[in-house]
Amino acid sequence: MNDFGQRLSDAILAKKTPAMVGIDPRWELLPEELRRDAVAEHGETTKAVAQGYQVFCQRVLDEVADLVPVVKFQMAFFEAAGAEGLLVLSQLVDHAHDAGLLVVLDGKRNDIGSTAAAYANAYVGSIGIGSTTLRPWNADALTVSPYLGTEGINPFVESCDKHGTGIFVLVRTSNPGAGAIQELSAEGRSVCERVADLVEGASASLTSTPDGYGPLGAVVGATVPEQLVALRKRMPHVPLLIPGYGAQGGSAADTSAGFDERGLGAVVNSSRAILFSYRLKDGAEAPWKDSFATAARRMIDDLATHTPAGRLR
Amino acid sequence: MNDFGQRLSDAILAKKTPAMVGIDPRWELLPEELRRDAVAEHGETTKAVAQGYQVFCQRVLDEVADLVPVVKFQMAFFEAAGAEGLLVLSQLVDHAHDAGLLVVLDGKRNDIGSTAAAYANAYVGSIGIGSTTLRPWNADALTVSPYLGTEGINPFVESCDKHGTGIFVLVRTSNPGAGAIQELSAEGRSVCERVADLVEGASASLTSTPDGYGPLGAVVGATVPEQLVALRKRMPHVPLLIPGYGAQGGSAADTSAGFDERGLGAVVNSSRAILFSYRLKDGAEAPWKDSFATAARRMIDDLATHTPAGRLR
Repeated sequence: MNDFGQRLSDAILAKKTPAMVGIDPRWELLPEELRRDAVAEHGETTKAVAQGYQVFCQRVLDEVADLVPVVKFQMAFFEAAGAEGLLVLSQLVDHAHDAGLLVVLDGKRNDIGSTAAAYANAYVGSIGIGSTTLRPWNADALTVSPYLGTEGINPFVESCDKHGTGIFVLVRTSNPGAGAIQELSAEGRSVCERVADLVEGASASLTSTPDGYGPLGAVVGATVPEQLVALRKRMPHVPLLIPGYGAQGGSAADTSAGFDERGLGAVVNSSRAILFSYRLKDGAEAPWKDSFATAARRMIDDLATHTPAGRLR
Repeated sequence: MNDFGQRLSDAILAKKTPAMVGIDPRWELLPEELRRDAVAEHGETTKAVAQGYQVFCQRVLDEVADLVPVVKFQMAFFEAAGAEGLLVLSQLVDHAHDAGLLVVLDGKRNDIGSTAAAYANAYVGSIGIGSTTLRPWNADALTVSPYLGTEGINPFVESCDKHGTGIFVLVRTSNPGAGAIQELSAEGRSVCERVADLVEGASASLTSTPDGYGPLGAVVGATVPEQLVALRKRMPHVPLLIPGYGAQGGSAADTSAGFDERGLGAVVNSSRAILFSYRLKDGAEAPWKDSFATAARRMIDDLATHTPAGRLR
């Protein structure tokens, strides 16, 4: 089985773009007709929210499936719709796979030992019941938070190695205050550099080709371009997931250092700019059903113009 | 509305113990009759796992409800049973509340900005749909991971302040390799000391009584008793959640420094020793239905004998 790093590179080459669409639904931003229909059917309940997310996100997936290699579901928004929201999430993961997309679940999970293994089994591995092996969530990759150290990472690495799946470890996030922990420096290395070394070390051991990308990725924000340069060099076998493009202030040029000269090695996420471009500044709504492909094409062109991803074309 | 710190202290005083039961179900350790019944009804599916967890955990809750103030559900195990597992978790939270227990969800969630707010709304806050306000998960508190800095904590603090709920921030965890990140020291303070200062700073501003405990708690492992002494002093308004007792190697005496002289200020978690005491070393099963109260009483007595929690009696 190909590992996640290979599958991600293949998908980027096939779609000729490193654009990742972030599926971050927000009830109050959904098209009014969807909210009205959902409440008419289910009342003002989490079930209505879940139904709204299902209809909306399926349309997003159908619109972008031919354009981008990978989507990232932000689990928080589905969890905020209770267990019904998570049922819809699991259906959307299947829908995305059926449409030919790779799926990253952005859950920033983290724990140790057998509990970390339970998360790994849940999202990027499998569980055994009697003689049956099941993949409960069947994601291609999961985001993981590193505060617990290597014991919080290794159970995920084992699952990824066994199942051809991946993780993206938070290394340097895109929020202004991230440095308070991540940039602390001791004995010549900052916290985020130590996490980067941990990911690169674990990844190199799993990567089959010397210049390829392994199944262990890292999250490095577009809002810290000078860190992106340094961390890209520090993790040569590690595919990057770059958030912070667009609504959070990072430009396409800011993501440029994440790529190698072939245009591989990184995916760039955009959520709000693709999902909610139909919402006009005065609060009115433009037609929404075709807005997702239009917004995705705009991002794809922007990345192709201002980063090495243009060489994928 | 009383804040979570007050409600936690009240519950500890009412039950006269700081023992917390960790609800960490594992399919392969469930009583054989439960597994057989569940598979007979649902086949080898995640639905069978979810049903097994429901029957098992309801019994645990019913057995310990009169003995302890608070239970902690480990979300990873429920997530490993897919969306069905999370539906059962939400039902068990209600069941625990009906039985008079406080509920902590151990999800170690973390994100920034509006995504962190979505987690906060989901677990310790509320969401609005039209004119209706709903509490999707209705937990009393949630565990939170601090790698993203204050922007990853503040949205939770706002929800807690508004809803009388709490969080427990990971400060110093109980695993052997935790120090790789958490003990890194720069400019006179380690990473975990910085996180502790962050939690104490945010907590002091929310705490109404000068010697009371606020709604913001911290996770500090029993396996690092010297750190527990220092971190307890560093966070005088912060209730501690102490894992690592029992199966992970921490003794009751190791948790002692977490308490004030009244026996308040900390809860001590035990999961495996209470849930799976019916499993004998040779793989056989002792009767399980009454095992949970017996094991909980053993822990309660141990804490009363070797820590200031004895003064609660």
